[in-house]
Amino acid sequence: MGAPVDPVTSLPVVAMVGGGQLARMTHQAAIALGQSLRVLSTGPTESAALVAADVRLGDHRDLAALRDLAEGATVVTFDHEHVPTEHLHALEEDGHRVAPGPAALVHAQDKLELRRALDAAGEPQPAWAEVDSAVGIADFAGAHGWPVVLKTPRGGYDGKGVFVVDDVDAAAALLERTGTLLAEERVPMVRELAVQVARSPFGQVAVWPVVETVQRDGVCHEVLAPAPGLSEERATAAQELAIRIAGRLGVVGLLAVELFETADGVLVNELAMRPHNSGHWTIEGARTSQFEQHLRAVLDYPLGATAMTAPVVVMANVLGGAAAADEWSGPGLDERVHHLMAHWPDVKLHWYGKGQRPGRKLGHVTALGDDLEQVRARAVAAARYLADGVVDPAFAFPDDEH
Amino acid sequence: MGAPVDPVTSLPVVAMVGGGQLARMTHQAAIALGQSLRVLSTGPTESAALVAADVRLGDHRDLAALRDLAEGATVVTFDHEHVPTEHLHALEEDGHRVAPGPAALVHAQDKLELRRALDAAGEPQPAWAEVDSAVGIADFAGAHGWPVVLKTPRGGYDGKGVFVVDDVDAAAALLERTGTLLAEERVPMVRELAVQVARSPFGQVAVWPVVETVQRDGVCHEVLAPAPGLSEERATAAQELAIRIAGRLGVVGLLAVELFETADGVLVNELAMRPHNSGHWTIEGARTSQFEQHLRAVLDYPLGATAMTAPVVVMANVLGGAAAADEWSGPGLDERVHHLMAHWPDVKLHWYGKGQRPGRKLGHVTALGDDLEQVRARAVAAARYLADGVVDPAFAFPDDEH
Repeated sequence: MGAPVDPVTSLPVVAMVGGGQLARMTHQAAIALGQSLRVLSTGPTESAALVAADVRLGDHRDLAALRDLAEGATVVTFDHEHVPTEHLHALEEDGHRVAPGPAALVHAQDKLELRRALDAAGEPQPAWAEVDSAVGIADFAGAHGWPVVLKTPRGGYDGKGVFVVDDVDAAAALLERTGTLLAEERVPMVRELAVQVARSPFGQVAVWPVVETVQRDGVCHEVLAPAPGLSEERATAAQELAIRIAGRLGVVGLLAVELFETADGVLVNELAMRPHNSGHWTIEGARTSQFEQHLRAVLDYPLGATAMTAPVVVMANVLGGAAAADEWSGPGLDERVHHLMAHWPDVKLHWYGKGQRPGRKLGHVTALGDDLEQVRARAVAAARYLADGVVDPAFAFPDDEH
Repeated sequence: MGAPVDPVTSLPVVAMVGGGQLARMTHQAAIALGQSLRVLSTGPTESAALVAADVRLGDHRDLAALRDLAEGATVVTFDHEHVPTEHLHALEEDGHRVAPGPAALVHAQDKLELRRALDAAGEPQPAWAEVDSAVGIADFAGAHGWPVVLKTPRGGYDGKGVFVVDDVDAAAALLERTGTLLAEERVPMVRELAVQVARSPFGQVAVWPVVETVQRDGVCHEVLAPAPGLSEERATAAQELAIRIAGRLGVVGLLAVELFETADGVLVNELAMRPHNSGHWTIEGARTSQFEQHLRAVLDYPLGATAMTAPVVVMANVLGGAAAADEWSGPGLDERVHHLMAHWPDVKLHWYGKGQRPGRKLGHVTALGDDLEQVRARAVAAARYLADGVVDPAFAFPDDEH
């Protein structure tokens, strides 16, 4: 094979740039495969740095830190998209394997690159334009109507870097701050969906069922698997779309395709090329989790079965409550964990070990079963209780959430 | 609560004595609960030391090492039974929580203590006697017949420390080497079963379905969950037996009760008070794994649901093949892992990162489904392939195995 392996175990060493919860959960999966994830973390108390055995402290924008991480590793992969492209080329020139490679990853880093590539491939997406003037935005609005969705091409996540503007003055004021933007029509969407597919260098692909992602203010709150009421035809079309994109862009590892569902079909919103919040449900809900599958894919191992383990699986994020940690007067975290376990013995907890901050993704819970309303009510109530220490009766009724 | 927590996460710190595969898999479970298992390992390449963030190197017979491990930990628990009882008392006198406590643990450390306690409780077990002379063994054989099973009271595992002797001369020769022994009748057993139950300090218990453990030469090869063909009445009786023993002995954490099934019912063979090989199937096969449940129990958290995730679950151990590592001429480990994944995409691998040695437990695989013969054939063939790199057609037929 030629690529480095661990001298003690004779098995591969996967190095991951970034020490967040995705790296934390990838390390869990690595343990089962006989491996230990090597992590590049910006500090010793990052989520993955708290639990991994092989932690390198350093910045993902520092080529020397990246080179230290890659040395002796079988392959380098990512917990986020923020590594400069030129550093990835430098690692490849050093002879290191990087998965996904920089030519693929740029489509998850730069939304303009993604829009150009999807147009070239003839794949469905919102009408869009690259704009760097108020006149350009006014022209785009003339063709597609107000409001216009404006996005910074790089660096946005969880609703950050996305702006909905109603007139040309607001657009002009924004442009002054940001420079070139991606303009998109506001899609008359029914809901948001996501498809995850893994692809190996050999070209094998494995896709999970299409899920619905329930978003508020651009932040994912819940994931419903499979997407309720989605026709088999549309689900298959979405899976095929994800497989085509993965192949055309040469993705290695996990690809999450975020979709808008409209009356007519689906449109591609964004891509992520790593384990993704829309796939956390797979830890208990699918035969192979996205974290194990990402490791398999970047190592060119054969991919695992993606069948669901229950008819319905719901993941709910635990988002930091409005109260800052030092103003908190409710039950402490350990007490909330006690009560969660007592009240929902079947709900599975995943806590990331991070400090509490309003809106921050602190953990998630997963519930499984046969009945969507019941499963969803349990997951949402458990997540809400863990975040706020408050049992909100409204949260027992999933109808309030949709 | 008063007990120490982690200053970064505000969550408990569980410290485990021993760095084997049980600690390794407990660390995986700890990660989901927001924790990081602290491990006392005898060396840096032990199974758990390769993957845990908080590893203390030291010997479990060294009180200073145990005290260092316990300092700042919420509770101390165990990967094995080999810590001297007086050290556990010393830790408790220092004010540390130890789970299970020494008064309970002695029944998993000393087979004579177990036999006395079960007699006092009136629980079913083989006829037995404490023997320290050939005359004593001859008397016992006079009452119960030859052969007699002789066991060293302490230190045995995986068939070590167990001897089946056919006459008084062999018994006398053995006694000269060992000192006092436990003599047991050879039970006319149909098969071996095991029940696992978790018990918290609060007194809550949670029990998994009774399993069949398929043993060869005293070593567990397969676990079939639930035990095939076991009547509901006998299964319930075995679960109730395990719950009674856990309560009577004051167990905190996991208790595995190994049973002989005879024509008339079940007899207690041995106890383990920790996660146990007979419970590895619960990682994928039950809503709550034995590793997560052990953490919940020793922390006095409410216990998790123990329902099975599929009608049939089979775990097969991967035992080191006969060839020593340096004489091995078959496919390398990484290649075998590739082939395993290609051939059985639904079989779940757990590899412990240990060096290959004949008979050593190197890992395990788990398969799930509806049909016992098919599920078992897949698990056994995958485990055998991983151990030897040989596809043995006989192993595709579970009838050959029973």
